[in-house]
Order: sequence, then structure tokens, then C-alpha cells
Amino acid sequence: MVHLDSPYIRNLLSEVEARIVDNLKEGNDYIKSSVEYLFSSTGKMLRPLLLVIGSEAGHRKDRREIINLAAAIETLHVATLIHDDIIDESEMRRGIPSIQSKYSKDYAVYMGDFLLSRSFLILAELDIPRELGVTMAKAVSRICTGEMRQYSNRFNPDITPMEYLKIVSGKTAALFSMGLSAGAFMCDAGEDVVKKLSHIGYRLGLAFQLQDDLLDYTGDDAVVGKELKVDLLRGYYGLPVIHALKGNSGARIRSLLTDGLTEDDLDEIIHLIRDGGSIDFTKDLVTRYRAKTESMIQDLPESPARSLLLEFLPRFFGRIH
Amino acid sequence: MVHLDSPYIRNLLSEVEARIVDNLKEGNDYIKSSVEYLFSSTGKMLRPLLLVIGSEAGHRKDRREIINLAAAIETLHVATLIHDDIIDESEMRRGIPSIQSKYSKDYAVYMGDFLLSRSFLILAELDIPRELGVTMAKAVSRICTGEMRQYSNRFNPDITPMEYLKIVSGKTAALFSMGLSAGAFMCDAGEDVVKKLSHIGYRLGLAFQLQDDLLDYTGDDAVVGKELKVDLLRGYYGLPVIHALKGNSGARIRSLLTDGLTEDDLDEIIHLIRDGGSIDFTKDLVTRYRAKTESMIQDLPESPARSLLLEFLPRFFGRIH
Repeated sequence: MVHLDSPYIRNLLSEVEARIVDNLKEGNDYIKSSVEYLFSSTGKMLRPLLLVIGSEAGHRKDRREIINLAAAIETLHVATLIHDDIIDESEMRRGIPSIQSKYSKDYAVYMGDFLLSRSFLILAELDIPRELGVTMAKAVSRICTGEMRQYSNRFNPDITPMEYLKIVSGKTAALFSMGLSAGAFMCDAGEDVVKKLSHIGYRLGLAFQLQDDLLDYTGDDAVVGKELKVDLLRGYYGLPVIHALKGNSGARIRSLLTDGLTEDDLDEIIHLIRDGGSIDFTKDLVTRYRAKTESMIQDLPESPARSLLLEFLPRFFGRIH
Repeated sequence: MVHLDSPYIRNLLSEVEARIVDNLKEGNDYIKSSVEYLFSSTGKMLRPLLLVIGSEAGHRKDRREIINLAAAIETLHVATLIHDDIIDESEMRRGIPSIQSKYSKDYAVYMGDFLLSRSFLILAELDIPRELGVTMAKAVSRICTGEMRQYSNRFNPDITPMEYLKIVSGKTAALFSMGLSAGAFMCDAGEDVVKKLSHIGYRLGLAFQLQDDLLDYTGDDAVVGKELKVDLLRGYYGLPVIHALKGNSGARIRSLLTDGLTEDDLDEIIHLIRDGGSIDFTKDLVTRYRAKTESMIQDLPESPARSLLLEFLPRFFGRIH
């Protein structure tokens, strides 16, 4: 039985990392050193892991295909992070200064584009089935519309939970869904299993974003509350804020948000959100996503992918509960 | 015989335009209205035209394939323009305020990404041969490294003409080359013709950029000289500047460029470039590209593509000479 921490999985992920960096070796010394810098710190490789897990739902194929596909998805993900950091003006990413802060916003625009193009190059070279190519291109497009949708809803106190979930569907869930299902598709896991994995990945993605929202209210107040305040000042409202805007303190929060925020206003808003049950509401939603996802995984036919996902689930949700 | 202004070509290009806009209909009202705004003013459709011309080197195929391919290439081109305008802080594009100035730099980042993703979606849906997919992905990647290369050479008085041509190869020539050859490839024009068209497109692309450099020194001084000055202040040097830096006035220009530029300094630099023969050098290079391109076109086997290119050439180079 394959486990999440088995050398088989670990080695596959290392090979994915190597493939990602190798695929970006191009251009002059400046470009090469910026790529090297970017990957001097790596992330959790969550999407490649999901892809590898998904591939275990079918017949084991040429490892190179899975490695390449995972490298394409992670490259794409890193491209979106580079561009997100421009908009969020994030100073740090994965423990080191972000590309936009170390190089410049301008360079970060091009570097994100370069990674996007290289992600597509891997896919083009792979010669994946047309159906999978279309699914992947649509997922990338959904990420972008998710981001645009989020942008267009800045400072919108009337944003509905449904509109918010649409944003998250695109921004996060689309790639989780694609990661988990694409590996299965490539390994001929069968249409039904691929579809189920796509749904599981989608729900994991929604839960991931909601957990992120919750992190704003837990952990070290000094650090975490700061990020939440920056988001509020920049007009980005997570689900707890959106929920609180519909609750008893909604009118008060709305008037605070629209009248120029002071430090005291921010503290009051966070206080109102905590006390008004919006954290519990969001936690409850995550719990429901978890239960739903778990039953969907249980529902899968017996396979290494199924047991890997059951092993993955508590770790994934361990961030909050 | 098909002519450049024939209804056949004009109708094809109109259909390409319609396909581009149709392919971008997605998201909420905000996103839709921004896409509508973007295409309320259209460009010269030079790359789709090259693609259509190239397709006339082979057997006429299903028009939808050519239309889709051309739409993908132009969508990609517009995506790069949106991102370029962020870096160049361009206020205007095609006679209307640019996306970055009308919406914001942040939104322009996402909108460019969205167009990129939609360009790839068209290609994925087309199910083009693997070989063409790889060529196209590589061309996109070369555009990005061209831009990164240009960025990394800002304020570099030691930039060589060779490095400059590498920048232009990526930034401009790669897409011209792809445009002209991809249509021919899709229409089974034969390996040899496809290769020749790729070379012709490449040279047209280089010439296009050099003509752009020259435009800085001709025409209305009040308007055109202004753009050149902005470029100099921002550290972007075109071929005339690079050539002059190697010439007799090189030391003087170098010291002016590195010591903080005043309006008088800028005027002196432009004067030195004009007087030092660097404009003539660049014009001469364009003339040589033109002659070379013309003989390459003459060398093509008889086809509507060949005569269309011969008709295209004087118009294309008419911008300067």
C-alpha cells in the first residue's frame, strides 16, 4: 500500500520540482538567476500531490507523463502567485521576498507570463488528449475570471455568499479539481472516477479557501490580524465578513467599512465578526465540506488513490480543527 | 487572384474579430463590459492577416480552422499589449485609454492573463497537431523572455546590437513568424514552404520593430520625440541609440545617459544620434531586411500567398520609406 510519506510519492514530487526548474532554463543570466531565486524556496506542492494521488486511481503509466503534467500544474500555480503578489503588494512569498518586491512589479508581470507560457509548453509537448487540454485551458481561464470577479467586487458590502463562492470556485477550486482529476484521466481511471475526483478536488479547493479565511481570525493576533486588516482596507472581504454584513451587526459594519477605516474601526469590525457568529458559520461550512468530501471519497471504488485521499483528508483539514 | 483588399480577405478578418470577442464572453457584468471596452477599438489585425496570407500557400481548408487560429494569435497579441501597457504606463492604446489607465494596473494583470488563457483555450479546442502546438507555445514563451531580456537591459549602455536583436526576435519577430507559418502548416503547404514563411515572418518582425525605432526620429517632433524621451528616461534604448553608443559620440552620450537626464541632455542625445549616422545605419538595415525578405518571397513557389506577400511588402515598408 502506498502512503503519503512513502519514498515513491516523495521521489515523484522531487522529480516534479526538478522538472519545473529545468523547464524554465532559458534566456540570459538575469532571467536564469531570477528563476533560480524563485525556486530557492518551494511551496507545499499541494497540487502536484493531488495529481499524483489522482493518478493512483488508474493504471500506473509512464512516470514521465505524470511528472510533466504535475510540473505544468504547479508552474501554472506559481505563475498565478507571482501575479497575485503584484496586486496584493505582498512583500513575502514562501518565506523569501516575493518577485514583485525583490525585482519589481513590472518584472513580475513578465515572469508570471513566462511561467504561464512554459506551463503550456509542457502540455503541448505532452500531446495530451484534446478533452484534457480543453479542461485544463478552461480551468486556467476560470482562475483568471475568478480573480477578475474578486477584483470587481472590492469594496462591495452587498457581495453575496454565492458570488463569493463563485470567486473561490475559480481562484482556488478549479485548479484543485483539475489536479485531482487530470492524473486520473491520464491513467485511464474511467469516466465515472475522473468525474468524482473532479468534484472532490473542487470541494477541497473551496474548503481550502475558507480555511484561509478562518486563519485570519485564529493564531497569533499580532501577525494574522494584520493581514485581515490589510484585506479590509483594500476592500477584499472573506466569507466571515460577508456573513457578518448580512447579520445583526451588518448595518454597523457597513457604515464602518464605508466611512474611511481607522485602526479602532478595524478592531471593532473584527470584534463584531467574532461575536456575531460568523466565524462559527464559516467553520461549520468547512465541517460540512469535510464530511461531504469524506463520504465522496468513501464512495470511490477501492484503489490506492482512495486510501491516499483518506490519509490526506485529516492532514488537509488539520490546519483549522 | 486574391488581393489584400478583396472581400474574401476582409470578410475573413471580420470573422476573426467576431470570434475573438465571442471567445471572451464570460464572467460577471464588470468583466463583460471591460472586454467590450477593450474591443471597442481594434488594431490593424496584422498577425491575423499574416496567418490568412500564409494559409493561402496551401490547400483551402475549413475556414473555421483558419479563423480560430487567427483569433488565438490576435488574442495572444492583445494580451501582451495589455501587459506591456502596464510596464510602459501607456495612457492610450488604439486611440482609447488603455486598460491599465482606464481600469487599473491590477485589473490589467488579470485581464491579460484571461486573454492568454482564452487564446490557449481556442488552440486546445482546435486540436491542432502536436508539432504546431509546441511551436506556438515556444513562440509565446519567446515573447516573454524577449520582454524579460529587454527589462534586464534597461539602463545598460553596453547593450550590443546582437542582444538588442535577440530582444526583438522574441518580442516581435516570434509572433510574426508564427502567424505566417501556422496558417500554411494548417493548410498543408509542405514543410519547405512552411519553413520559408517562418523565416519571412521572422524578418518582417525584425523590420517592424526597427521601423518603430525609426518612427521616433521622424514625423511630428512634438509628439514623436516625446515618446523617445520617455524611453530614454526609462532606460529603454532602441537600435539608433545602441548604435550611437558605439560611435564617435558614444562616450558623450554615455555620460549624458548616466548622469541624470535633463531636457537639454535629451535634446543633445537625439541631436548626436541624428548627426552620427545612426538613423541612416538603422534605415539601411531595414532596407537590407526588405530586400532579403523580397527575394525570399520571390523564391516561394507560385501561390496566392506569394502574390499576397508581394502586394503586402510595399505597404508594410511604406511606413518609413
